[in-house]
Parts: sequence; structure tokens; C-alpha cells
Amino acid sequence: MDKPKIPNTALHERDGIAQPQSISNKAIAHVIQLRKKQPSAIELVNGILAGDKTALSRAITLVESTNPSHLEKATAVINSCLPHANKSVRIGITGVPGVGKSTFIEAFGKHLTGLGKKVAVLAVDPSSSLSHGSILGDKTRMEELVKDANAYIRPSASGDTLGGVARKTREAIILCEACGFDTIIIETVGVGQSETAVHSMVDFFLLLKISGAGDELQGIKRGIMEMADLIVINKADGDNIKRAKLAKTEFNRALHLFPAKASGWQPKVTTCSSITHEGIAETWQTISEFFDLTKANDFFGFRRSEQNSYWLTETINEQLKANFYSREDIAALLEQNKKAVQNNELSPFAAASILLEKYFGLK
Amino acid sequence: MDKPKIPNTALHERDGIAQPQSISNKAIAHVIQLRKKQPSAIELVNGILAGDKTALSRAITLVESTNPSHLEKATAVINSCLPHANKSVRIGITGVPGVGKSTFIEAFGKHLTGLGKKVAVLAVDPSSSLSHGSILGDKTRMEELVKDANAYIRPSASGDTLGGVARKTREAIILCEACGFDTIIIETVGVGQSETAVHSMVDFFLLLKISGAGDELQGIKRGIMEMADLIVINKADGDNIKRAKLAKTEFNRALHLFPAKASGWQPKVTTCSSITHEGIAETWQTISEFFDLTKANDFFGFRRSEQNSYWLTETINEQLKANFYSREDIAALLEQNKKAVQNNELSPFAAASILLEKYFGLK
Repeated sequence: MDKPKIPNTALHERDGIAQPQSISNKAIAHVIQLRKKQPSAIELVNGILAGDKTALSRAITLVESTNPSHLEKATAVINSCLPHANKSVRIGITGVPGVGKSTFIEAFGKHLTGLGKKVAVLAVDPSSSLSHGSILGDKTRMEELVKDANAYIRPSASGDTLGGVARKTREAIILCEACGFDTIIIETVGVGQSETAVHSMVDFFLLLKISGAGDELQGIKRGIMEMADLIVINKADGDNIKRAKLAKTEFNRALHLFPAKASGWQPKVTTCSSITHEGIAETWQTISEFFDLTKANDFFGFRRSEQNSYWLTETINEQLKANFYSREDIAALLEQNKKAVQNNELSPFAAASILLEKYFGLK
Repeated sequence: MDKPKIPNTALHERDGIAQPQSISNKAIAHVIQLRKKQPSAIELVNGILAGDKTALSRAITLVESTNPSHLEKATAVINSCLPHANKSVRIGITGVPGVGKSTFIEAFGKHLTGLGKKVAVLAVDPSSSLSHGSILGDKTRMEELVKDANAYIRPSASGDTLGGVARKTREAIILCEACGFDTIIIETVGVGQSETAVHSMVDFFLLLKISGAGDELQGIKRGIMEMADLIVINKADGDNIKRAKLAKTEFNRALHLFPAKASGWQPKVTTCSSITHEGIAETWQTISEFFDLTKANDFFGFRRSEQNSYWLTETINEQLKANFYSREDIAALLEQNKKAVQNNELSPFAAASILLEKYFGLK
């Protein structure tokens, strides 16, 4: 285009100094560059060890990544954090939807930060697409705790397999601990098999309940009550107080039906209100007594060591099975043999032999 | 030696016909030959299908054999018997030593044969060297039942692994059923993990108890009460009757704490005396009601089918693990990695990855 002809009138103004761009292009390029550039493993580890929550979040995202190219870096970060981890108490909290897990964790977490503790809240929810309103997916429900400088809240790790989710959660625990969090709360939605997985990664297992219409014990998933070190009856406020106390008596009786625990701990029942905060301090007091006991009798360290062995073996066994069942020829033969077993043409053991011979290439 | 000279006297008697040997050498050779000669698979199957207990015993011994050369024949026998099996009810009976399992099974078994049933009693005891006086190891304790033409009692299958014992027991069940036994009782000693294995191979699970000093529910192994379809309080005779009735009330209450069973059956409690035989008929009546219910609602067949799938998968998974952990190079590396995990130098997941890469030859 031609240069516009300057009109020769009094109205013409000379070109002045050009208005500078309000944002420097160089700065834009720098920021874009920074965003693209992922921090190195060393940068992440240094950030975590310095207590930087942003570095922590990025590292957790890295270990949660399903991108195989991230695996090596994630492993490096985990292994560097490991010597700085393990200095915490890990508390599992479960309860069916509606018992008020989010309000309880908020009130409980605030109480702990008030005592000078650094609290990390993680969630395990292997069926996140199925669960209706997993609390931690919705951070806004824990408004107070989210704003607390001494708290860190991380929504559900997701994954296809419970093993995968468990692995990610275990590794997130390590990262949180290396970041200086001394009280790790693992929340699970209380409707699936995730309780067992969570039970295998925490030091203490808390079952949250509300007092119901009478028959308190009906409908508790098998085994969950056996795992509980403490049952907390939530929403013990207003008209509910009396019912909560009755429920406490009933649960206490039920807990005595179970054999003594290896920890030497007799499971307890407390009532609390996440609204009036009554019972929250008592609940923490009870949990502290558990840690005093199990640290004194060495059960605490013994159990962590057992959990490590468990996850090592569990991971191996899961992978061995995955390798077997994912082979296409095996899957086809399995289908065929299953039918023969159902029709009583083959015993399950004979069918297994045929499949194993195929797998190990013996026939 | 020279032929003795015949003395020429009146006392001499002429040689008569030689006294024949009282036992024919040919017959001896034949019997020895028969003993050495194991019956063929077809002979065993024919014997079993004809209801011959000797053939049944020989076939069970064959499937219990750890001699690999017997495996093929055992498999052939099992597979030929399979189409004739499955027409029975399978009842698991457990209880800690001292509750009177042998006397109960004797009284209960006699009651059943009195009703025209054919009863086979098998035992699962994976820790036979540890258990003190496994009842079925000592057949003489069931004198009456042993003599009963319609009963068959087989002492414990032994084995190194629970899986191995379970396999042998499952196969013995098939053989007993093919032999015409319509009521299979599987006894387990109630002190180990064998209850879960037995639960996975029976249609009905009976827990035998005695009334104790008060706190009836203490000391019951976790999970065993949950598996029970019926709790029978034994030794409800003489001074014990009152206590047994109290125990019945307490167990009934405890059973209601558990969630409803998939079978649709509400577990029950009965009292009985193996001495006065009071309650034995009622106990069988209750078990019959369970079978009426579960056959009507199709749970009976569904569960057998599930059990077949379970044992197929279980056998495969056990063998996959056995193959992995028995490799010497793997065992050495595992030991080394376990230490690194305990020292927090390696996460359990990273350790598992290293081992799996080695096993699958990736590194």
C-alpha cells in the first residue's frame, strides 16, 4: 500500500512518539516459554522440599499422568522425595455419601491446623465417573480449609484399576510428606472396594456414620466395620444428639463382637458435630491416643513395613495377571474353557492346566 | 540227597497221594499280580459309577497322589466322572477343636442315612501336621457312621498349599458324587484359612459352636460368622441346655448385624445334642429349607457356576505367582529390593517394576 498522502491543512498533526504497546512482546514470549517449559525433576524436588504447594501439585499431576514418557521423571521425583517422607500420620476416612464427609474433614482439618499441624487431604475414588458428587472433586465445599496456608487439598486421583489409583495415591502421600505435611487424610467414598486399598496405606482408619432410624448396623459393608479404629457419629447436633448417643452405645457393643486387633487398640466410638464443632477435639484426642499406643508398642512401624511389602507383592501379582489375561490367544481359550467347565465337560483345574500350558508355551 | 532206603518192616506204609499245598502257588502269584496291577482309569470309573467304595477310595488316592505320572490318569478319571457329578448338596462344617465335630457329624450323618440319603464325609485340613487330632484322621471316633453302608468317610487330604488341598478336595467331591453320594459333608478344623476355601466349594456353610462362659462371640475368627448359613450350638444337653439357649439368642442377634446374603437366606441358629440327638432333625430341617429356597430362586446353580469360575481363575493366578516367585534370580532380586523398600530408598511400585522387567526379560 502506498504511504497515505499527508493533507496540507491546518488540521494536520505531525507524527508524535508512537504509543508504546501496553504489554511487552518479549515478556509475552517469555511467559509462553515458561508455561511450555515443564520444571525439571530436580526443580520439582527442590520446590517440594521447600514446602512449595505449586511444585507439589505439579509433581502429583506428573505421577498421575498416564503418559508413559512422564514415568521416568515421576519415578525420579518419587525416589528423591522418599528419604524425606514417612514422617507423618496417615488417617483414612470413609463413610457413605450423605454422612457429611466434606464438612467433617473441613472442621477436623481446621482443628488440626489450629494445633499447628500441616494437613494434606487426598481422595481415593476409583469409580469417580459413577460416584455422585465426590466431595473432593468439588473443592468449594471445603472453603475454609482450602484457604488455610497449612492445608493442601487434592481432588481424586482417577484411574481404570484400583491398583492404579492406589499407586497414585501412595505416591501422592510420599510427595505430600516430603513437602512437610505431617497429617495426611485419605478420603474414600465408602461405596466400593477402595476402603480395603485405603486401609492398606493408612495408619488409622476412621468410619464416619450418622445416627439413623434405629437399626444402625444394617447396611454397613462387610468388613468395613472390622477395619475401623474409630467410628465417628457425625451430625450429633440439635435434635440428633439423643439418637447419636444411642447409636454410640449400639456401635460400641457391636465393636466388642470383633476379636482384638493386632495393634492392641480397642476400637472406639465418638460423636461429633461439624457445625457446632462439639466432639471434634475429642475425636482428635482419641486418634492421638492410638498413635501414642502404636508408636510405643512398635505396631506403627511394623504396619508401615507390612504395607510396603503388601504393595510390592500386590503390584507384582496384578501385573502377572494383567500380562496373562491380556494375551488375545489366552482370552479366546479362556472363554472356550469356561464354557466347558460350566457344562461339566472339564474340571476347573483341568481347564486351568490347559491355559497355563498354552501361556508358558509348553504345548 | 539219596532217596531214603525203605525199611523192610510191617510198619512201613506205602507212599500215598501227596498232601496238596493248602494254598495254591498259582493263586498266590495271581493275587500278588492283582495287587501290583493298578486298575485302569476305565475300571476305576466303572467301579465308581457302580457305587463301589473301594474303587472310590482308590480313585481319591490317585487324585491325591503327588506323583506326576499319576496326573494323566487322575485327570481322565475326573473328566469321565464329571458328567455324573453335581447331583448332590454340599455342606461345609467348621468349628474349633473341642466343639464336638466328630460326634455331631456322626449323629447328623446317621440321621441322614436314616432318611435314605447317601452321605460322604471329607475333610480339609491344610495344616494336618499342626492340628491336634483332626477328627477324620481318626476314623474310629465315628464308629457308627463308618459301619454304615450308605456312608463313606475319607480322612484329610493333605498338601503343602491350600490351593493344592482345595483342588484335591474338589476332585474328591466329584468322585463321591459320581459314586452316588447325594450329601457331601466337608469338614474343616476351624483354625486356619481353610474355611474360606471350603466356603468356595460348598452350597451351605455350618458353624458348630458350644455355649461358653458368657461372651459367646469373642474369639470367632473374622469372617467365619459372616460365611455361616447356620450356627449350630452343640452339646445342648444336661446342665448346658439353658446356656445353649442363651447363646442361641446372642448369636441370633449378632447374625442380624450382617447385611443380607445374596442367597436371600437369613442365617439361623439351632441347638442340638449329639448325645440325646435332640435338635439334629431340626438342624437338617433348617438346612433343607435353605436348599428349597436357593433352588427355587436359582441361587444354588448360580453359586456353583460362580465357584467353578472362581477355582479356574484361582488356579491360574496361583500358578502364575508360583512360576514368578520360584525363579531363583527373581527370588534373589526380590530379597534385595525388599530391603531397599524398607530403607525408603525405593518405592514398592518402583521395586515391582524392576522385578517385572527382569521376569519378562525386558531388561
